Amino acid sequence: MSVDILDEIFHAQSIAVVGASNNPASGGYHFTRHLIDYGYRGRVYPVNPGYSEVLGLKAYPSLKDIPGPVDYVISSVPASQVLGMLDDCIEKGIRAIHLFTARFSETGRREAAELEQKILRRARQGGIRLIGPNCMGVYCPQERISFGYDFPLEAGSVGMVFQSGGAATELVRLAAQRGVRFSKVVSYGNALDYSEADFLSYLSRDTETKIVLMYIEGIKDGRRFISSLREAASAKPVIIVKGGRGESGARAIASHTASLAGSMRVWDTAIAQAGAISADSFEELIDLAVSFYFLPPVRGARVGVVGGGGGISVRSADECEEAGLEVVPLSPEIREELRSRGNPIWDWIGNPTDASITGGFGFSHIDILQMMAASPDFDLLIGNVSEGGPTRKEEMVGRLRAEAAGYVMIGKTSSKPLLVVVGDKSPGVEDYEFWRWTELSKTRTELIEAGIPFYPSVSRAARAARKLLDYYRKRE
Amino acid sequence: MSVDILDEIFHAQSIAVVGASNNPASGGYHFTRHLIDYGYRGRVYPVNPGYSEVLGLKAYPSLKDIPGPVDYVISSVPASQVLGMLDDCIEKGIRAIHLFTARFSETGRREAAELEQKILRRARQGGIRLIGPNCMGVYCPQERISFGYDFPLEAGSVGMVFQSGGAATELVRLAAQRGVRFSKVVSYGNALDYSEADFLSYLSRDTETKIVLMYIEGIKDGRRFISSLREAASAKPVIIVKGGRGESGARAIASHTASLAGSMRVWDTAIAQAGAISADSFEELIDLAVSFYFLPPVRGARVGVVGGGGGISVRSADECEEAGLEVVPLSPEIREELRSRGNPIWDWIGNPTDASITGGFGFSHIDILQMMAASPDFDLLIGNVSEGGPTRKEEMVGRLRAEAAGYVMIGKTSSKPLLVVVGDKSPGVEDYEFWRWTELSKTRTELIEAGIPFYPSVSRAARAARKLLDYYRKRE
Repeated sequence: MSVDILDEIFHAQSIAVVGASNNPASGGYHFTRHLIDYGYRGRVYPVNPGYSEVLGLKAYPSLKDIPGPVDYVISSVPASQVLGMLDDCIEKGIRAIHLFTARFSETGRREAAELEQKILRRARQGGIRLIGPNCMGVYCPQERISFGYDFPLEAGSVGMVFQSGGAATELVRLAAQRGVRFSKVVSYGNALDYSEADFLSYLSRDTETKIVLMYIEGIKDGRRFISSLREAASAKPVIIVKGGRGESGARAIASHTASLAGSMRVWDTAIAQAGAISADSFEELIDLAVSFYFLPPVRGARVGVVGGGGGISVRSADECEEAGLEVVPLSPEIREELRSRGNPIWDWIGNPTDASITGGFGFSHIDILQMMAASPDFDLLIGNVSEGGPTRKEEMVGRLRAEAAGYVMIGKTSSKPLLVVVGDKSPGVEDYEFWRWTELSKTRTELIEAGIPFYPSVSRAARAARKLLDYYRKRE
Repeated sequence: MSVDILDEIFHAQSIAVVGASNNPASGGYHFTRHLIDYGYRGRVYPVNPGYSEVLGLKAYPSLKDIPGPVDYVISSVPASQVLGMLDDCIEKGIRAIHLFTARFSETGRREAAELEQKILRRARQGGIRLIGPNCMGVYCPQERISFGYDFPLEAGSVGMVFQSGGAATELVRLAAQRGVRFSKVVSYGNALDYSEADFLSYLSRDTETKIVLMYIEGIKDGRRFISSLREAASAKPVIIVKGGRGESGARAIASHTASLAGSMRVWDTAIAQAGAISADSFEELIDLAVSFYFLPPVRGARVGVVGGGGGISVRSADECEEAGLEVVPLSPEIREELRSRGNPIWDWIGNPTDASITGGFGFSHIDILQMMAASPDFDLLIGNVSEGGPTRKEEMVGRLRAEAAGYVMIGKTSSKPLLVVVGDKSPGVEDYEFWRWTELSKTRTELIEAGIPFYPSVSRAARAARKLLDYYRKRE
């Protein structure tokens, strides 16, 4: 059973790194170091005839010299040495190999593609399953297996099936910065043996995985993929971004993972019919991951928006509407409540609520949001943490802390989906010690600790919310 | 002549802040403090009968008590006191007022709208011109007039006409972080007297302004606006973003600046016919400002792209193509040169160039970019500063420094437009001391000092480049 061997890989108790090295320019160095630094719970066996020790661990001249059993091999040797290594694996009774080793069919050269096929035949004869070649392999925080230095230590519920190792690394980093944590991640490259369908089937049954993200350049077996996608999508949200959408992208994927891109029209239809979700970009993939991770189901399009001044309110209204949300006017009931509680601008305040006009009457925009949260007229809420005002550090810090506290309070007391926008003000020119970042980062941390997702813009929050709504409506 | 008075405002030698205060919760405090902190070159006169001193400056009970002439008044008094202040201005011979004071027609209340009209009539009778009400006024770095605490001190060539003060503040900050500097910026709110057409005409003739950015919610006089737009767009790039594009946005602008949004179809057509450029979002407005500010004219769509691993290359190709650029294959001449110089993967390397495969042969992706820069087959270049690799701090820092040096070298030696992508990795959760930001920020600083613009994604760089190409083609 392929699923069983995948389970052995993700939960490997012993890993051999063939081609392990003390040279920081080599992949073998990094894979060994990842396991050590990340605190891998099993045994690590560096294999390299040129070293007696690698990164403080005893090194073995060959796989056959390792005393104990080996659940899983990471291969970092050159392509020309893979067949020999396979023979050693067969002799040792090893059942699974991750081929970080590259330069096969993706080079576009016949002899490299032929070697790749020879490796597949030899592995099949020996009962060995392969991940790759030309990929980063496995990240499984539960077992402390990682292919990145700064991946989160804690586990979460997002699984990833990514053809590209660079894209997987970037996604893990960026989604982790937005509070997402992972169950099992795999980068599978050329998909010589195990392909997207195998990993997807595995994750669809994995009880620790509640959401699946995929990056696919090309499909090995369309029918099998669609069947595994249908199975997975019926169990949990599966969000897919496709690489190689145009002509030059298709050319680029041929030289990246030797895949065939296929037609986008056919692709989009197939994904939708299977009940999965297409993301149009990596940014959207992250937004959707964050939304499914943190939000309750979105059941309607009527959004209440607060925060920021008048200009930001106008823009928020435009962006929500363009994303397919309904920015409904404040209800007569809310106006009446404002009036009866003595708010002199009860007739002027609107949705979105311009936070620059609410001050001074004992009603902040957070109070308005709380009224929206309690009202049956709103299905979801968007808060906008504004940076716009002409204020200095002390005031801004106080304002940010108060805003975060307000959103945290509403997140705790309301069952409605609450999305908070914390403007994406990246490090710019020469201001790398700028206090604003620290403060924004604190704000983000406070939100995430309260289980409230944040987004870099209203537009991105609104688009994600709309896709969730479509997803839940389709499943009703 | 309205232009003359605007000139007096932007180059005011003395400014009175009416409603100046030592209370940091008041606008009058901030406007006074902006002028002091920012190093305003002229005289500042705080006016407030309740203070003998404001922020260390002698305060005057009324405008009439100020000994010298006053070029320009910033009003921070409540709406009910504006008519009285106008009388003082008339008596003192003052010709220009910026009404930060708000709560007029934007409240939707008849008495407030009537007061606004009374103010206009009184000002006209007294020969006084008004900016606002309900706006932030003027930022002119040359004279050290500012309405933000952290606006750049150095002047540059970008002028801005923004109806919203919050949006203007945000734009200045974000564009400044991307290296842009400003000539004259105005936030004009309800446009009771001076309107978008006046400011645009002024900036179109202003020799220090080479690029104009506009944010408009509603137009006072369509015919006059289009005529001033045509005049300005024939002289310099004018890039406009429209607020209130949908139904709820139109409702929001009514309560923000009391403007009528108008139809977007009519709007888009009018902008295009006048030769101006529509930006679809604030993000695009910033990208276009950066592009016009730093890049030479874009004359063709054939783009050469380098940087990042295979996954990023695939995505870059897709995003460039979707933006309307042509990701042409590497020419036979470049392949032949690679081969003759002994590069063993001359047939595998492509455009985009996957930087993860170029290493180890004495040819980096920067070398490939240099060959693209020298080749007649490419009209523009995009470099992608990748963060994707599984590397640690020391290696990443070295790589970033080397990449920046490479792009700076090509920027200096090539006349082709070069756009560099430095991934938009904003502060995330709990990592506000993360070294990556510092390093990315250094990279950005190095690029900007060499006059090379950076972008948060390939998609945004490619879209901006395509809009520049369309602009220059239209003008040919």
